Amino acid sequence: MHYATFLGLDFGTDSVRALLVDAAGRILAECVRPYRRWSEGRFSNPAAGLFRQHPLDYVEAMTEAVRETIAQGDPSRVSGIGVDATASTPCLVDAAGVPLALHPEFTDDPDAMFVLWKDHTAIEEARRINEAAHSCEGRDYTAYEGGSYSCEWFWSKILHIARINPRVRAAAAGAVEHGDWIPALLAGAPVRPSRCLAGHKAMWHASWGGLPPLAFFEKIDPLLVPFRRAAQNDSFTAEQAVGRLCPEWAAKLGLPGSVVVAGGMIDCHSGAIGAGIRPNTLVKVCGTSTCDILVADRVDHCVPGICGQVDGSVVPGLVGFEAGQAAFGDVYAWLRRFLSYAGDVSVAAIERDAALLAPDPAGIVALDWFNGRRTPHADASRTGVISGLNLGSTVPMVFRALAEATVFGAKAIIDHFAAQRIPVRDIVMTGGISHKSPFLMQMCADVFERPVKIAACQQTCALGGAIIAAAAAGAYASVPAAMARMASGVGREYQPRAEASAIYARLYKRYQALAEFSAKADRRCQTAAR
Amino acid sequence: MHYATFLGLDFGTDSVRALLVDAAGRILAECVRPYRRWSEGRFSNPAAGLFRQHPLDYVEAMTEAVRETIAQGDPSRVSGIGVDATASTPCLVDAAGVPLALHPEFTDDPDAMFVLWKDHTAIEEARRINEAAHSCEGRDYTAYEGGSYSCEWFWSKILHIARINPRVRAAAAGAVEHGDWIPALLAGAPVRPSRCLAGHKAMWHASWGGLPPLAFFEKIDPLLVPFRRAAQNDSFTAEQAVGRLCPEWAAKLGLPGSVVVAGGMIDCHSGAIGAGIRPNTLVKVCGTSTCDILVADRVDHCVPGICGQVDGSVVPGLVGFEAGQAAFGDVYAWLRRFLSYAGDVSVAAIERDAALLAPDPAGIVALDWFNGRRTPHADASRTGVISGLNLGSTVPMVFRALAEATVFGAKAIIDHFAAQRIPVRDIVMTGGISHKSPFLMQMCADVFERPVKIAACQQTCALGGAIIAAAAAGAYASVPAAMARMASGVGREYQPRAEASAIYARLYKRYQALAEFSAKADRRCQTAAR
Repeated sequence: MHYATFLGLDFGTDSVRALLVDAAGRILAECVRPYRRWSEGRFSNPAAGLFRQHPLDYVEAMTEAVRETIAQGDPSRVSGIGVDATASTPCLVDAAGVPLALHPEFTDDPDAMFVLWKDHTAIEEARRINEAAHSCEGRDYTAYEGGSYSCEWFWSKILHIARINPRVRAAAAGAVEHGDWIPALLAGAPVRPSRCLAGHKAMWHASWGGLPPLAFFEKIDPLLVPFRRAAQNDSFTAEQAVGRLCPEWAAKLGLPGSVVVAGGMIDCHSGAIGAGIRPNTLVKVCGTSTCDILVADRVDHCVPGICGQVDGSVVPGLVGFEAGQAAFGDVYAWLRRFLSYAGDVSVAAIERDAALLAPDPAGIVALDWFNGRRTPHADASRTGVISGLNLGSTVPMVFRALAEATVFGAKAIIDHFAAQRIPVRDIVMTGGISHKSPFLMQMCADVFERPVKIAACQQTCALGGAIIAAAAAGAYASVPAAMARMASGVGREYQPRAEASAIYARLYKRYQALAEFSAKADRRCQTAAR
Repeated sequence: MHYATFLGLDFGTDSVRALLVDAAGRILAECVRPYRRWSEGRFSNPAAGLFRQHPLDYVEAMTEAVRETIAQGDPSRVSGIGVDATASTPCLVDAAGVPLALHPEFTDDPDAMFVLWKDHTAIEEARRINEAAHSCEGRDYTAYEGGSYSCEWFWSKILHIARINPRVRAAAAGAVEHGDWIPALLAGAPVRPSRCLAGHKAMWHASWGGLPPLAFFEKIDPLLVPFRRAAQNDSFTAEQAVGRLCPEWAAKLGLPGSVVVAGGMIDCHSGAIGAGIRPNTLVKVCGTSTCDILVADRVDHCVPGICGQVDGSVVPGLVGFEAGQAAFGDVYAWLRRFLSYAGDVSVAAIERDAALLAPDPAGIVALDWFNGRRTPHADASRTGVISGLNLGSTVPMVFRALAEATVFGAKAIIDHFAAQRIPVRDIVMTGGISHKSPFLMQMCADVFERPVKIAACQQTCALGGAIIAAAAAGAYASVPAAMARMASGVGREYQPRAEASAIYARLYKRYQALAEFSAKADRRCQTAAR
């Protein structure tokens, strides 16, 4: 094989990143392109928890990003493409697998678009799915997804659209995940479900022979039956190639038709690979939300309250565990947006002022569930709280409390894994915030009371895509072999400081107390509101 | 008597108002002067709950306000001055009754100044006083002050200063309330404790022969003993004149020495008189905080959880009940101040946007205790909470929730009186917000589910001072007789709207649930923080 390069395509919440990497993991070129319609705020309604993305946003941004990236390298050397995307971000499709919003009659209908991971319109549908799952005799189909099916996941969202939009429902022949659609599109091949998407988001599990049976979906709602019928019962790990670049897309991107297209991945799974994940290392991808990935040797019990445990979902041969926080950077962004009513101020500027304040064991305590709670024990109806306010409470103080809340939320996940006999031996942070905010990363080390390592590469998700592409293209014999050569090393490492840890330990107790009482108050409030 | 006029002097939180009124209650002239040092933010630390005011601020602002007011009328016709002030706002004084900050060596020491009503530095001292009061055999000296002595009141604040500032303590021979000091100053007479200040703020009660005995103060802390020794054991209703204007002040103000100086009053008591209070009418003075005054015929039981019940404290012959909210407009002002980190925006502009939103039974719910809770059941350690936040929560939504919280806090007081067999038959609102905010006043009617009347006069506190002055000067035979001719009529009246009331009733249940759980969480948090 000549000197080969690999493209990682990382579809994030706001933009797509293309990364050109060589077989030693060196980054040769990169480019980020925002989603145009999304950046204009179209098709979404944040107050209603409705977030939709137009498929053309992905297609246009990807085309530009890839062309610009390979223009900085040698297109003829590109041997593989690996794709990752946010999840669960599904869309209803026609019989040919085409997202409905690509049809002129649905081009402005948000229900015909991709339902972004953080969309929370399907709370009622998730409730129905859980009700059905928890009343099945002998088998709980949510068991490998933490015991509770989220409104952020595939079937909840499909059912929601099917229930509320008969016109879209009538036109649909099936549904597809964003991460599965792009590889199929590029290869000109039928959609092929990836193990991580199917296993973590759609209740696929080998022990029941694939997806849950038709009868289960019939029990939830007969509207789901045609979608279950249309879905494939198999799933594939990502290093198994989907095909090669089809002539149409080879021409559009300016790449040779020989390029191998790997299977799609969930972005944070890809990030864990890019960060060189090892058994019992928690790789935490910190961005607008967090996705926390842990791999471990075979475990015999189901871990409740997480977002799934799936054989081979991250690294073939190991069990991949997924957890996460539904809002992390989004919480800080909320404060910035809230303040924008009065004027523009950046998160960085607020953070700078907040960093001047010492942690105050008697100060403000917040709950980080501004986008619901994901782990432990997903509950999309949970909300953000800011308590302990007085007439002297300032923006930096509230920011500090929000920052602490997000880090306490992270600690709650680590504690949860430990309590479930899945020890967390090492913590590697990656994603934008891990590089942008020494303040938050030091807080993580102090709160976790252990060292926190930052992946040196700033683009671990896209790098993971390139690693998978290298394995799929045969440049390496396995994913671990590709990771060993290509994955990111550790950059900065933060050490816990005993004095700060002691104060945070007291604040964490207050966070836990507030969380516990808030849960009860929420339930009581919901009853009262009826 | 020739055609007489009367001056009401209303010392508010930020400024003093002088109002010149004739014997028919017609306003002839008025002037407002801010406290200069206070407006520059000197001597206070909002984040620490520390709010102090320099006595020169009062003296200078009063002199200017009176001179400018009487210049618009005929100084020779002024027959009486009535004074009201915020309370409890005490100051340590020397043997001659001079506030210590008027001595050069203490002119910059906040502990030698008046400790403003909303100062919360004496939480620990209030705890000690309550501990001592609740462990006395047979007699609870807080019984007529709602069963709990507040950190906002006289003895808590005096003890706090005495404990933390030995230099000021050594120089002090006693202490005085702002509302008692001004009449004594103007008359050049010794301080004469007014019934409302002594009864509502200093545990004075006829049934135990005046102030609690020395032994009680010794039990709290021997540091209080000299202050108790120096205090007078009598108290006087305000229409009993303190004296006549002394030559020095007659000259300074440009008024005749014949002017009768009435006793001081708490500002909201004066407001209740200005609003023409009648038995079982709740007069709610809405400003930065609220003070709620109710008068009733003799009652035989002690009402717990309020700020006192004192014979003759408002109107001679009736029992005056005081309750209140430690923050009302201050809560909205907090939001404006919070947002000022990003840019300037007025409360009125935010309120305009908030008024466009419908009440949302599933939306944000806040607790209004940003300055602690005053009634029912005073607890200065309680804090503000904003719950139910999500990524779409905006400033107008949060403002609406804060507004609802303050009005729910008002409803909790009305409910508390009713539960204590003190029926509230009529509600009259007065104070700045009652005229400035139809939005809030309509919300009050909707939440209270009864009509809300607005006092036509915008300056009921100062008007009440003038009414008391008229009674003190002998222009009327009694306070009720003076009120009958001079007090404000009813202006606008808001009617409850059934549909809104139904939604607010559901939100009020959520407020109550949050309040209940927040109390428990606060206790738990305090334990965890230790």
